[in-house]
Amino acid sequence: MSRATTLQSERAYRIEPEPQYTPQIGALAEMMNYTRLTTLQAVEGLSVEQLDAVPEGFGNSIGMLLAHIAAVDRAYQILSFEGRDLGEGDEVIQGGLSMGKNGTPPPTGQSLETLLAELEASRAETLKAFANKDDEWLASNMTVPDFDYPNHHWAWFHVMEDEVSHRGQIRILRKHVAPKKKG
Amino acid sequence: MSRATTLQSERAYRIEPEPQYTPQIGALAEMMNYTRLTTLQAVEGLSVEQLDAVPEGFGNSIGMLLAHIAAVDRAYQILSFEGRDLGEGDEVIQGGLSMGKNGTPPPTGQSLETLLAELEASRAETLKAFANKDDEWLASNMTVPDFDYPNHHWAWFHVMEDEVSHRGQIRILRKHVAPKKKG
Repeated sequence: MSRATTLQSERAYRIEPEPQYTPQIGALAEMMNYTRLTTLQAVEGLSVEQLDAVPEGFGNSIGMLLAHIAAVDRAYQILSFEGRDLGEGDEVIQGGLSMGKNGTPPPTGQSLETLLAELEASRAETLKAFANKDDEWLASNMTVPDFDYPNHHWAWFHVMEDEVSHRGQIRILRKHVAPKKKG
Repeated sequence: MSRATTLQSERAYRIEPEPQYTPQIGALAEMMNYTRLTTLQAVEGLSVEQLDAVPEGFGNSIGMLLAHIAAVDRAYQILSFEGRDLGEGDEVIQGGLSMGKNGTPPPTGQSLETLLAELEASRAETLKAFANKDDEWLASNMTVPDFDYPNHHWAWFHVMEDEVSHRGQIRILRKHVAPKKKG
């Protein structure tokens, strides 16, 4: 049964690996999909101004967190599928990864539509590669110099886990930048 | 190889199911363990005052979030292992679940040691039950009336996912209640 496309679907609440993936990769893809649906829910309807706002006491904007989530997918494609570290030519991805590390980042200035399109595009690459991998590969260690102790299973779990963590933060940020009207 | 007990261990960055579990349950247990290590790291060394603080603009304290994380484990033990909804006698768990929903919760007044002991105790019950279940059960639907559309795999993924989400929030809260000294 194909994956859920909305949290309103009961299918969203079942980890049922799709047949194009081996069992562990399939379970991971399901978790990544559920996570993504919750991310989409958390940012629904936000304007550019709301996406770029950095409330007092916070170090990031929701827009920057969305750009970061997509960059993490792209970064792990390089680390896990290409087996190399990020380097020359990967500056955009590295910018998305380091958000907030060197002070408050500038506004992305991007619309929700643009940010979501990159989330969709980066994830599509991951899922496409997943369909050509198997669970033996998933269990094997990464081959990046100095980053060869994690296995691919952890790597892609981490991509999902990092998204969940930032989605948790987005939920708090949203209360500040788009407070619900009372009544 | 047994599970990692610290994030300093390279073992923490590998999903390597332990032999007492079936493969999918084992992968889930690994993810839950990694998540827990990051939660412990996020709250390390906090005082009762820091745990109970609710900074301006936030709806919860770190202590309340830790109590919530443990309560979610207990709640899903009832839902998934016992196949029943929460009810009479489960008031403490329900209190932990609803944190923040009905306004700012009162301080837990509990030390980090006490909160972590309950996290450890609740998780131990989950892992003990996991060792007596298999992947066929994991893939099967829950049996709670009106909550029978999720499968057990989603349920326990969700327990982990909810913890990650709150850990992400704890990381922001910590910057407010225990700011790093500059120098």
